[in-house]
Amino acid sequence: MTLPNISPLAPDTFPEIPPISGVWMATSATGMKYKDRDDLLLMVFSPETNIAGLFTKSATAAVSIHLTKKVIESNQGRCLLVNAGNANAFTGSKGDASALLALSKLSTISGLPLNTMMMASTGVIGEPLNADLICAHLETLWNSKGTANWHQAASAIKTTDTFAKASSQTIKYGDKTVHIGAIAKGSGMIAPNMATMLGFVVTDAKIEKALLQEMLFETNKNSFNAITVDSDTSTSDMVLLAATGSSKVVLQPDSENALKFKSALQQVMTDLAHQIVKDGEGASKFITVNVSGAISDASAHIIAKSIANSPLVKTAIAGEDANWGRIVMAVGKSGQPALRDKLTIRIGGVLVAENGQRADSYTESLIDNHMKSENILIEVDLQIQDGVATVWTCDLTHDYITINADYRS
Amino acid sequence: MTLPNISPLAPDTFPEIPPISGVWMATSATGMKYKDRDDLLLMVFSPETNIAGLFTKSATAAVSIHLTKKVIESNQGRCLLVNAGNANAFTGSKGDASALLALSKLSTISGLPLNTMMMASTGVIGEPLNADLICAHLETLWNSKGTANWHQAASAIKTTDTFAKASSQTIKYGDKTVHIGAIAKGSGMIAPNMATMLGFVVTDAKIEKALLQEMLFETNKNSFNAITVDSDTSTSDMVLLAATGSSKVVLQPDSENALKFKSALQQVMTDLAHQIVKDGEGASKFITVNVSGAISDASAHIIAKSIANSPLVKTAIAGEDANWGRIVMAVGKSGQPALRDKLTIRIGGVLVAENGQRADSYTESLIDNHMKSENILIEVDLQIQDGVATVWTCDLTHDYITINADYRS
Repeated sequence: MTLPNISPLAPDTFPEIPPISGVWMATSATGMKYKDRDDLLLMVFSPETNIAGLFTKSATAAVSIHLTKKVIESNQGRCLLVNAGNANAFTGSKGDASALLALSKLSTISGLPLNTMMMASTGVIGEPLNADLICAHLETLWNSKGTANWHQAASAIKTTDTFAKASSQTIKYGDKTVHIGAIAKGSGMIAPNMATMLGFVVTDAKIEKALLQEMLFETNKNSFNAITVDSDTSTSDMVLLAATGSSKVVLQPDSENALKFKSALQQVMTDLAHQIVKDGEGASKFITVNVSGAISDASAHIIAKSIANSPLVKTAIAGEDANWGRIVMAVGKSGQPALRDKLTIRIGGVLVAENGQRADSYTESLIDNHMKSENILIEVDLQIQDGVATVWTCDLTHDYITINADYRS
Repeated sequence: MTLPNISPLAPDTFPEIPPISGVWMATSATGMKYKDRDDLLLMVFSPETNIAGLFTKSATAAVSIHLTKKVIESNQGRCLLVNAGNANAFTGSKGDASALLALSKLSTISGLPLNTMMMASTGVIGEPLNADLICAHLETLWNSKGTANWHQAASAIKTTDTFAKASSQTIKYGDKTVHIGAIAKGSGMIAPNMATMLGFVVTDAKIEKALLQEMLFETNKNSFNAITVDSDTSTSDMVLLAATGSSKVVLQPDSENALKFKSALQQVMTDLAHQIVKDGEGASKFITVNVSGAISDASAHIIAKSIANSPLVKTAIAGEDANWGRIVMAVGKSGQPALRDKLTIRIGGVLVAENGQRADSYTESLIDNHMKSENILIEVDLQIQDGVATVWTCDLTHDYITINADYRS
């Protein structure tokens, strides 16, 4: 079985993203795991930058998570070092030492304090990290900061990703302009052997730390927290949102300007999240699951996840099979309140089931074309109360098995 | 891709099970979905029989679940009718009527009250059930009760199962003998299109209803509740335990005799549960996950399920890849208390990870042969407290995708 080089769901082109003032990037190739490509990214932030962060809740989180979390908490972040190919997770005290060695060296070279150094590591779990391979590149990286563009940055953090992921927005405030530029990686919630969903979002707006953290938390709900590829959670998931302030546009809490920014930020976050699903291992279909009428938004989210994570729903869609009985099953197994006779199910906008049974108007031919398309829409209305949620996922195909079983990464 | 006719993990032969006094069985072929095979089973119990039951917690449970639950609650059960090929789930009020029609007819033919009639339906969800096809066979079934043996009964309730599943035990009490005979079906937690795990256990011991229910509940924990194929829960899961009392051996609560029986019952239940896993869709490996040292048995069970349900763990095992990093990930994502530096992982009895990293003594060659074998053992010791659990599952293979995506059942 040959795997596609690039996901069939990949966007046609990499987006145009202008440089953002207040952040300087550089990339390098250590050869640690991947040959003939960059696998190390340095992001350097101006001293005025505030950075918010969200991290995996895994009980076996990698050392990079613990280190970066501390820096975010004290809001001292100046440098972010990202290596691809080794997650440095479950590598014990040796792994802790490797991460500290790399960051200490970067601290010395840059003249910036150690407690301003952040790290993100993505790749194999349990393999000792060779810090020397990274350290050998730090001086060059520091001296070349500002030379890498967004495409180079997004490419350097890929592991099994089949395309580089980025998104941007421009927001006008009178004659002033605010930019958002962002990159992400991840091709499974945890990729084969390869842990990690990473997202790095940078803006030149000036936003105080508390507001920034709140905006990240809020926009994460309907983006990275609303996607699933295989229900597996990485030891290294991390999303950072940095505001350099270089645009001189200050966003105050509860202001209209802040709302406008948050809306643009939501678009960037959702776009990146969709790209991760579209690069889901073996994905051939992009699936949107809308749940409404649940007893609460949280309940709707659990039901939507239950549908989106069901191997039987996902394999049916891979087979272009309108097997709506499996959607009923997934609602039932969620453990959330549902009433058989009130539940309605639509696929591709077509009413499939209502009143506790197949809709009288429904025949499979009505959704044949929809099932064959790349974008599948599942809508479940519980008609109990007004809880809503949307979750995005991809189908479960032979290529998923091939990527994760047949090849040793 | 050709699928194996019989699971490679199937037992070599169907077990020898003697007839059990106090239950009479008959089978028939309706042709509803399957051709040239029986798909209807009638079990008739003596008036002295007590019957305990456990049922799916699905919010979209089938009508057969609701009907049978009521009969079990009032302990009036005399007849059990099982049809294979149509789950009669999410078929609305028409489906409710179809089930009642079949049971009413059986009530009339047998002269037994309607509230003693139980039903189990397994097969496609959402397809209207043609009650006439069943009703046409009820008189013959009733008149031929006692003609079917255990093998015929186990075969008649199969859907996509590749082999008939049964188990039995004989317990000696002095010069008296108690028998347990049991059949089951299910080849996914929910099979392709085909809902349902069903288990029917019959003994000739005399056991009062409350004790019987307690024994079923207890032995179910480490059998049907400790297996998973694809994490999907059926709308029709049902396990019944019937005690006809015909052996005249009376088992009192807390007696040594009852304990002896419960131990034999546990063996039957666990054996059936293992057979269901071994017929898991596409299964090529039988996986035992032992978790110890958790903060409680419940916590250990959640962690064991998290490992057993992880698509990445299951695909790695399908690929005979000792990818223990994915086990670390699955422990981490369970949300249960775990300490990186205390966790130990063994595969096939070989220490793989300890002290928060790969064990110094470990090399992959040590478990190469184990990974190639049919029975895979994963042991995780959290070393926090003394909570333990065992969960059994199978691997996730190309055949699972083929069964569930490529073919429309």
